[in-house]
Amino acid sequence: MTATTEKYDVIVVGAGFAGLKAARELKAAGKKFLLVEARDRVGGRSKPGEIAGHTVDFGGQWVGPQQKLLLAEAAEMGVETYAQYADGKNILDVDGSIRKYSGDIPKLSLFSLLELGLLEKRWTRECAQLPDGAPWLSDKAEQWDAQTLETWILTHVKTSDARTFARVVSRAVFCAEPSQLSYLFFLEYLKQGQGLECLTGVKDGAQQDKFIGGAWQIPSRMAADIEEHLLLEAPVHYVAQSESGVTVVTEKGTFEAERLIMAVPPALAGRIQYNQPLPARRDGLTQRMPMGSVIKIHIAYERPFWREAGLSGMATSNNRAFNVVFDQTAPGVDIGILVGFIDSVHAVELSSYSEEQRRAGAIADLVHYFGDAAANPIAYAENDWTADEWSRGCYVGTMAPGTLTNYGKALRRPCGRIHWAGTETATEWMGYFEGALQSGVRAAREVMERNT
Amino acid sequence: MTATTEKYDVIVVGAGFAGLKAARELKAAGKKFLLVEARDRVGGRSKPGEIAGHTVDFGGQWVGPQQKLLLAEAAEMGVETYAQYADGKNILDVDGSIRKYSGDIPKLSLFSLLELGLLEKRWTRECAQLPDGAPWLSDKAEQWDAQTLETWILTHVKTSDARTFARVVSRAVFCAEPSQLSYLFFLEYLKQGQGLECLTGVKDGAQQDKFIGGAWQIPSRMAADIEEHLLLEAPVHYVAQSESGVTVVTEKGTFEAERLIMAVPPALAGRIQYNQPLPARRDGLTQRMPMGSVIKIHIAYERPFWREAGLSGMATSNNRAFNVVFDQTAPGVDIGILVGFIDSVHAVELSSYSEEQRRAGAIADLVHYFGDAAANPIAYAENDWTADEWSRGCYVGTMAPGTLTNYGKALRRPCGRIHWAGTETATEWMGYFEGALQSGVRAAREVMERNT
Repeated sequence: MTATTEKYDVIVVGAGFAGLKAARELKAAGKKFLLVEARDRVGGRSKPGEIAGHTVDFGGQWVGPQQKLLLAEAAEMGVETYAQYADGKNILDVDGSIRKYSGDIPKLSLFSLLELGLLEKRWTRECAQLPDGAPWLSDKAEQWDAQTLETWILTHVKTSDARTFARVVSRAVFCAEPSQLSYLFFLEYLKQGQGLECLTGVKDGAQQDKFIGGAWQIPSRMAADIEEHLLLEAPVHYVAQSESGVTVVTEKGTFEAERLIMAVPPALAGRIQYNQPLPARRDGLTQRMPMGSVIKIHIAYERPFWREAGLSGMATSNNRAFNVVFDQTAPGVDIGILVGFIDSVHAVELSSYSEEQRRAGAIADLVHYFGDAAANPIAYAENDWTADEWSRGCYVGTMAPGTLTNYGKALRRPCGRIHWAGTETATEWMGYFEGALQSGVRAAREVMERNT
Repeated sequence: MTATTEKYDVIVVGAGFAGLKAARELKAAGKKFLLVEARDRVGGRSKPGEIAGHTVDFGGQWVGPQQKLLLAEAAEMGVETYAQYADGKNILDVDGSIRKYSGDIPKLSLFSLLELGLLEKRWTRECAQLPDGAPWLSDKAEQWDAQTLETWILTHVKTSDARTFARVVSRAVFCAEPSQLSYLFFLEYLKQGQGLECLTGVKDGAQQDKFIGGAWQIPSRMAADIEEHLLLEAPVHYVAQSESGVTVVTEKGTFEAERLIMAVPPALAGRIQYNQPLPARRDGLTQRMPMGSVIKIHIAYERPFWREAGLSGMATSNNRAFNVVFDQTAPGVDIGILVGFIDSVHAVELSSYSEEQRRAGAIADLVHYFGDAAANPIAYAENDWTADEWSRGCYVGTMAPGTLTNYGKALRRPCGRIHWAGTETATEWMGYFEGALQSGVRAAREVMERNT
């Protein structure tokens, strides 16, 4: 390790969307800063990948029209969007039986559809009762945070199809089981994503558009802007605060600054050693915000055969492991590509299998959804986020019951010279790149207010 | 860091009861081993303390007649027991109103007592449905693991007093809120502790006896037996497995061994870096087993005035922070000492207060329970386990819903050359020194079976 006498205004830890955004804000304000990153790349939960000669996103990829910060950042970086392909019918697989439907509303029984409509109204009403940035202050916070989403479903959802739908949503949105989630956390997340329809929808929703060439280009270009301040392959092992500043011990050297922005998820921030152990509430939070579990899979075919069969390529299943699938064929691409996810407990289980086994399982699921034409792909590519040392899961840190009410206050509260960023700290679009950007701006403002 | 060419059969990480027991087993089998410990002392969640010139336990202290391994270990180490003082009446404070009662059964309404009796029978019956060492295989595992203990209480407990009692038990036994606990985990813990009466009782229960001179002497003397193999102040930063062995990087040097026993709680094991990131299920477990929160407080008086007033010194409260109190006056001690706990969310909150504030609050609570005679102590001593960097809470790692069924299998399953010990991995008396000792024996056997 090399010591340095140079002292920064701010050290930012983590070069995902949050850390990069904070860094750009600091640069704009003329601050002297350093951005350290454990990986050999920037982007965090955004990551480039490749299948059959085409670049794709191994990490997050969608953007909705409500996500203004992300759209603005992409525009500034010169990354354009295109619409998620959604023409034709979607597939819903419930207990092995295939149903085809158009639009966002699956083909369920009339009673189930009626119940889902009522459910969504109820959730909208309850979300509105959560004070911005402080859901734990809601009158019903204790009650909602004392139960799991599964308990809530069993109590309040009567039809089998509606229950199935609510559970599928939990897996697809949180990469976690409804048994693992606090109902209050579920509501807060729904609220931050402007409701269920927006969060889960394509048209007018969070899956409306993708980025030409990949979302990963955005952090990549953000990094180019602050390149001389960026230190890759520098995992942080130790953070020491004193009256005069903060010392950060990384694998690439030891650095000093006035303040630090920790732009990594709580679960990972908790794995760093601190000279003043974090306060009980903050350390407790890092023990209680486990990452969701997901394996992202791309499968390429000679042609987008599903389009020819009048299908959108979208499929959802309540019991198959490869349980959420979308068309991933970008404009101008002459082959067909599907993308999908192994979510939640399926990801935990299949992470220990071989790639060959996962490949065979994913293809079998696609054959079940789309027929025999899916049996012979030309390429397969996967990214197991549960095995990624510097994310330890995706998309986001989640909360079991009793966490938000008792530890929520620690999400953004600075600990001495340490300020917290990352999408888990967002007050809008937590879990999304949009929330990460918001948190980067907020944390940069925090340190600049204290530095003046 | 110093490199070494010496290769051990086994390196044990963590010199609490589990690690020390594993080390003693390895010594007895003639193995070449090293025991590394982050702290400057052995004992883990057992720790010596002092008040008014008397030695006390700042960590765990009680032993029940069912805890055969602990009693045997204590006897071998020459540490004797004495009975927890329990003569006279106990205090129960419910919402500010004091009730005095004798024995283990609090003074509740007849309906509440009837309901508690039924509850206990029901819990005993349900505990019996959990397969030993694999509660996730129970027919009702999914159902019980999908809800919080609080949800279960609201559904199955009708009288207000019985609800209060169940919540008080949760805080006292787990140092966690009933909203934070899986009902399946609650049952498994109850089962491992031979039922509610045994777990919470004094006479014939887990609080029946204490150790003359302190429980901390047991690990201290166990350590003396393996002194030349013990390395203190050596936090482990990195563990690297290869085909030929395992390398452990500590603050005191780098060491090689055939196998490793990790005898620290999952939450802390997860904070170590591994060259092969832990498998998804194991890493996921480390993200999902947060430590309970507790501050242990001793308060000394010139005389054990409560005894003279016909009180046992035992007090329990459902809404005061200093919510569980016992007589801590050892035989032959000429002053009076009370010991008690600030549990669960109260500990999280009060951890950020000053010692002076906690002292004033604890004394006020004692005055509420025992009268004005409690107002003028001669000494105060506390240990905030939530602030202890190498425990990050006490007594034990707990599980929210969805954890035991999905991650429980990872508790004891070795990861390559890494074997897991610690009270969280026990199949009897998880959370107690007894469970830690069982785990040490089991882990030592595991590595020896693989080494032959």
